[in-house]
Amino acid sequence: MFKHSCTHLTTLTKQRVLQWLGTIETVLFDADGVLWDNDKPIASAVNAFNTLRAAGKRNYIVTNNTTVSCDGILKKAISLGLETDKDHIISASLSVADYLANKKFQKKVFLVGESGISEELANLDICSFTVKPEPMNKSMKDFTLELKLDPDVGAIVVGRDDNFNVPTLIRANSYLQNRRILFLGAGMDKGYPIGENRRMVVGGGPIIAAIKTVSERKPLILGKPNPWMLRRPISAGLINPETTLMIGDTIQTDIMFAYNTGCQSLLVGTGVSSLKDVAKIRNSGNDKMMVMVPDFYLPNLEPISEHLC
Amino acid sequence: MFKHSCTHLTTLTKQRVLQWLGTIETVLFDADGVLWDNDKPIASAVNAFNTLRAAGKRNYIVTNNTTVSCDGILKKAISLGLETDKDHIISASLSVADYLANKKFQKKVFLVGESGISEELANLDICSFTVKPEPMNKSMKDFTLELKLDPDVGAIVVGRDDNFNVPTLIRANSYLQNRRILFLGAGMDKGYPIGENRRMVVGGGPIIAAIKTVSERKPLILGKPNPWMLRRPISAGLINPETTLMIGDTIQTDIMFAYNTGCQSLLVGTGVSSLKDVAKIRNSGNDKMMVMVPDFYLPNLEPISEHLC
Repeated sequence: MFKHSCTHLTTLTKQRVLQWLGTIETVLFDADGVLWDNDKPIASAVNAFNTLRAAGKRNYIVTNNTTVSCDGILKKAISLGLETDKDHIISASLSVADYLANKKFQKKVFLVGESGISEELANLDICSFTVKPEPMNKSMKDFTLELKLDPDVGAIVVGRDDNFNVPTLIRANSYLQNRRILFLGAGMDKGYPIGENRRMVVGGGPIIAAIKTVSERKPLILGKPNPWMLRRPISAGLINPETTLMIGDTIQTDIMFAYNTGCQSLLVGTGVSSLKDVAKIRNSGNDKMMVMVPDFYLPNLEPISEHLC
Repeated sequence: MFKHSCTHLTTLTKQRVLQWLGTIETVLFDADGVLWDNDKPIASAVNAFNTLRAAGKRNYIVTNNTTVSCDGILKKAISLGLETDKDHIISASLSVADYLANKKFQKKVFLVGESGISEELANLDICSFTVKPEPMNKSMKDFTLELKLDPDVGAIVVGRDDNFNVPTLIRANSYLQNRRILFLGAGMDKGYPIGENRRMVVGGGPIIAAIKTVSERKPLILGKPNPWMLRRPISAGLINPETTLMIGDTIQTDIMFAYNTGCQSLLVGTGVSSLKDVAKIRNSGNDKMMVMVPDFYLPNLEPISEHLC
């Protein structure tokens, strides 16, 4: 009954919230902007996470962050006070690796990204390499013509890449001119606001946009909002979307992901998207966009802990 | 009567071609892919250019290339055998500079681009600066937070930039968070194919796509297909669109530009777009796209000289 209503949980009675929470078996938490803000924990979320777990919910962290592996995400989560374990961390890097392993991919990956992806690929015995930092030490024409391509490359995988530059763009595009080479992206996340005046740490989205523009090829995005992210726990019977709540801070990834997987959704105002963004969608009059209106909204997760304690 | 018909000029009688050419007073030539292919002249086009000039047409070179200034383009044109002069070179760099001068822009430009743009800006007394090559010598978070912005910057201008990288992306986005700062692009050109297997020298398009994605702002593109490019010669009475033919190799820029300015258009098959691309547009069933079907087509410009000699 709350579907795409953006109901403020604080406007419901405690009894009504508890009744609803009683129907939820699993809670999926996005990480950046929900559980932590760069290196700082978001206190209300850490409390809510641990309180929900103590109340018997199965909590997962589901993140498009590709800078560190699932092990790295676990380490950070524990250091910030979250009670969880490796089996409950799902990342876009893992999703990409799982996709290639599922295809029995035997070739090499040219990775435009960080160690978060290369480690997950290696964990599933998939060979990847990066070429960075790669200088443009000759004319662009000579660089492009003289570029040696590895004939064993079968896929380009793109995530956040701090070393991305024009030589990498040319290299990726040169591979992608061969239509048999896969073009995979971890997530279209534009980045994450930090500090004052909305400065941004940039994500994989802008890099994918650049490669897409020059190559005229569409990437397959395997992080949120692709429901592929939940393939393994759903097929193992660990997650039932009908009784699962996704808590996220970004409409285009988290709330769309909840819609694509059939989970319920809660937008929290501690990260990228705001109620203004929800209003924009509602005012757009675009039916296709309306699925990105969340079921619930909270400015922060404090009320969850309060209601359960 | 030939509007958006993609008529192959070779299928018309010599008399019919001469009759039509008799109605043309001005011919606009794109440069890369039409007059030259990197450093090599396209012989049929050089002949056609000079023959048309000898036949009394006013020829202009109208290019989105921003790596060199109009002076540089003139120098190259003359060295490749084209008979022209400075007054008949129109570039996207000049168009950007003209736009800012027309607005009586008094602030500084942060330029994501090459000297072609900075020289044209300087010619119109507009101050610009680049920061390159800029290394990412700390964490992306620290780089972003510690970045010093120049309060005098009033516009970001983007063209092809061989030094483009993540630090530049973050710098551009940090400026663009201030909505009063203009976001101008020279052209959305994805690049230019060279050598075998469609390797590409990349243009400003992919860079603009990356900045657009992270900033969520739309750039004003002042190169082709923006009719602003012809503002000065049209207002000076030097060009009458009705009696002007645009010859180009790229549908999205050149042919669209002809449509936007009300000129006639001829697609030549020596560069980026092919008849396959025209067929794709025709088959798309999208009425908005149909305006990008050229009036005429030639695989190369040889027949123009043959008919006039």
